[in-house]
Amino acid sequence: MNAAYARLRSRFARMAAVGEAAAVLHWDASAMMPPGGGVARGEQLATLAGLAHEMLTAPSVAEDLATAKTEGNPWDDANLALMRRAHARGAALPTELVEATARANSACEKVWRRAKADSDFALVRPYLEEVVRLQRESASALSVALGLSPYDALMDGYQPGVFAAEVEPVFAAYEAFLAEELPRAEALQARRPAPTDPPGPFPIPAQRALCRRLSERLGLDYAHARLDESLHPFCGGTPTDIRITTFYNEQDFAKSLLGVLHETGHALYERGLPPDWARQPVGEAAGMAAHESQSLLVEMQACRSDAFLGFLGDELHRSFGGDPAPYGAANLAGLWRRVERGFIRVDADELTYPAHVILRFRLERALIAGELSVADLPGAWNGAFVALLGRTPPDDARGCLQDIHWHDGAFGHFPSYTLGAMAAAQLMRAARRDIPGMDKELGRGELLPLIGWLRDKVHAQGSRFGFQDLLRHATGKSLDPDDFTEHLRARYLD
Amino acid sequence: MNAAYARLRSRFARMAAVGEAAAVLHWDASAMMPPGGGVARGEQLATLAGLAHEMLTAPSVAEDLATAKTEGNPWDDANLALMRRAHARGAALPTELVEATARANSACEKVWRRAKADSDFALVRPYLEEVVRLQRESASALSVALGLSPYDALMDGYQPGVFAAEVEPVFAAYEAFLAEELPRAEALQARRPAPTDPPGPFPIPAQRALCRRLSERLGLDYAHARLDESLHPFCGGTPTDIRITTFYNEQDFAKSLLGVLHETGHALYERGLPPDWARQPVGEAAGMAAHESQSLLVEMQACRSDAFLGFLGDELHRSFGGDPAPYGAANLAGLWRRVERGFIRVDADELTYPAHVILRFRLERALIAGELSVADLPGAWNGAFVALLGRTPPDDARGCLQDIHWHDGAFGHFPSYTLGAMAAAQLMRAARRDIPGMDKELGRGELLPLIGWLRDKVHAQGSRFGFQDLLRHATGKSLDPDDFTEHLRARYLD
Repeated sequence: MNAAYARLRSRFARMAAVGEAAAVLHWDASAMMPPGGGVARGEQLATLAGLAHEMLTAPSVAEDLATAKTEGNPWDDANLALMRRAHARGAALPTELVEATARANSACEKVWRRAKADSDFALVRPYLEEVVRLQRESASALSVALGLSPYDALMDGYQPGVFAAEVEPVFAAYEAFLAEELPRAEALQARRPAPTDPPGPFPIPAQRALCRRLSERLGLDYAHARLDESLHPFCGGTPTDIRITTFYNEQDFAKSLLGVLHETGHALYERGLPPDWARQPVGEAAGMAAHESQSLLVEMQACRSDAFLGFLGDELHRSFGGDPAPYGAANLAGLWRRVERGFIRVDADELTYPAHVILRFRLERALIAGELSVADLPGAWNGAFVALLGRTPPDDARGCLQDIHWHDGAFGHFPSYTLGAMAAAQLMRAARRDIPGMDKELGRGELLPLIGWLRDKVHAQGSRFGFQDLLRHATGKSLDPDDFTEHLRARYLD
Repeated sequence: MNAAYARLRSRFARMAAVGEAAAVLHWDASAMMPPGGGVARGEQLATLAGLAHEMLTAPSVAEDLATAKTEGNPWDDANLALMRRAHARGAALPTELVEATARANSACEKVWRRAKADSDFALVRPYLEEVVRLQRESASALSVALGLSPYDALMDGYQPGVFAAEVEPVFAAYEAFLAEELPRAEALQARRPAPTDPPGPFPIPAQRALCRRLSERLGLDYAHARLDESLHPFCGGTPTDIRITTFYNEQDFAKSLLGVLHETGHALYERGLPPDWARQPVGEAAGMAAHESQSLLVEMQACRSDAFLGFLGDELHRSFGGDPAPYGAANLAGLWRRVERGFIRVDADELTYPAHVILRFRLERALIAGELSVADLPGAWNGAFVALLGRTPPDDARGCLQDIHWHDGAFGHFPSYTLGAMAAAQLMRAARRDIPGMDKELGRGELLPLIGWLRDKVHAQGSRFGFQDLLRHATGKSLDPDDFTEHLRARYLD
């Protein structure tokens, strides 16, 4: 490799180390930090973000990018292209804007916690206005630099190369599918006997042991991982030091368990990234939709499959004892694949979840375009909810205050959830085709053949491919939403 | 303030935020991190240290320091002086030397763990030789820049402004005191009835609750603190987010409890630093000897006093139950104020501890001066130990391999332990004079009058004063080792 590219590689490695430090501090803030540490943590994270941004935009980077050359290895080619992209994005944003954004996000997020608890949108409104103002400023600067619309420029930061014009028709088609099929799914469900809740309580130590055992069964190695507790479950940390979290409730084991399976899907992706490319752009995950495809494939496609529920029911009964009947596969399916027009995205079923995403995609696009003001957000939210799911949220806590994302400055991220769900269905279908007898394996609780396939087809590819090319590499075609609707038909409409 | 000083203030604030991030990552590495995260954590910490060094030594810092002016406020004056000192130290060390030192320290420390376990000095010797070589190189570069002897230049990095010529006579006097008084203390002790160990086990949840309750009683606010577990207890984190650790043993509650009291002394110092000067050099603690004075004042002076042991015994009995007799104040004093010519510094009593420090001070000074080679260290150690405490260490694990410090590149730090112990006695004497009825308060478990005095006289002063001026401010005189020997006479020789 030439000297300029070598310099870039070592600079990007240092930037990635700063990013890793920030990732651990983010985890700590949610899982460990005493409340009084919040203000200082905000300063620490803003400073690290600012430093990483300075490292990315130093004049020597542009000079080195102008003369950098690889030796034609496709990994190095992809790596250099991703460096150019990162630099173009970074150079578009002045350091002061980056640091101001970090501070505004952190301030808004703090107030949001109270606002959500009290369902008091007025409380957070001025903070959210500042967050949106800075997001518009960033989007507009990125738009000029990248030749994308402002909202596309933000989307590109979460799932590179997938833009609104491509997503809008996919979402419109899903909206039509849902309008037709949701009432049918509800009617079918109403005809089946109501499932029985297993009787609690479910002691938290038993839940913790079960979550750990199942995540290990999926291949998570605790020499490189921790499982802790936080208010909102997530997967954080770094590829060799993964931190997943959950939230236990003694009366309901399902939420924490299914949450851990979901986060384990994310964790396995990070753990499976190519170690030879650690701390290089091409060694990172391929974007948020790709990431969500891995968590949803594990949680929704594999672990809520009929085959796996049979195995899981036995495991649950071994953990919690009592009457075995509620742990039967059919009853678990009735409980965990229940379709409902709920108000809360994170509690939504597979079928209605995309409606929650479509709503947010449209509103955030309008917010960034300046077509919707923060003041009008609660009304717009409720109107859109009625149009999509036919009900009016009873308050803002169950409406526009429910998610952290916007209040933490994440605009352009929501579409990734549904793109990920669609990709998960497509990958699962391809895996079923490639792995003979996979459902038999799932029925015996054998997840490693599936995880091995994902490691090979997805994890080990890092960011070598974009989202669509990654799907082509793994499944032979670009995103095909029909694989998702077919999966839903089989599970909810037969 | 002028523009140059304002720029320096914001630069030092950013550097401090990077230092805070590193402090949390250090804590995490000891208390939380899975073993597989170690390699990446090393990279993260090295990168943050390198960035902070670059921020300190950027050309604009020298320019701004040349023209910076304060408006005569003594805090700003002290702050600017500390900035100049930090820059002089940082600029003296080339980045390559800083990085080579970090690498050599980390390599040596890793081998040392095995060498200590196997008591095999030959194993670590080449690594320690490299560490010493680089320390000599740094000391010599700092020596030129600061106009100090090489060893003084290293000492200055731990406790600014206190040098070997001042410490040597203090230590020599203590050596003479010990030679005369240690046999007398041992004889007195032998005449008293042997103390009784409270019978265990002591359930760890009860120990944990007790440690937390007592640290709260000392004024530690868990909205700004955590208490966790690690192999070696320490106090880390940041002033608004303190992390103390301990190590529980079901058969022995005393070590963890006294350790937590010690670390709480450190924690209260950090918590009491002046918030108006947060992330400025003058807002930091006044050095390692000053820090140790706070932990030892709490642990040794206050919590092992006759008065407090009366209160503490009742607390212990309430926590662990059983026969109350072993929890009587006199028995606890017999257990926790036992004089012994042990080989291990961290287990040493108040009277013999300084001998362990004097030995290390003399040997490290000779190592840095090139008067002692690493190869001759085990022999020199054992010879000095015989001279000071009259016994020969049975092996190097109980001799020159026992401490991490040198094997991690810390030379010049050891004197701080004994300077801190002396300062603690002096501060306690002044507090007794200033607070009427303080021992009565301690007997009721009321520690807050004492802590309030320390907060006012020491914590809130930050680094406004050097070590000697801080003592003058708080006690009316500079370091007076007689206060320490008087304390020891009263406790061990009456």
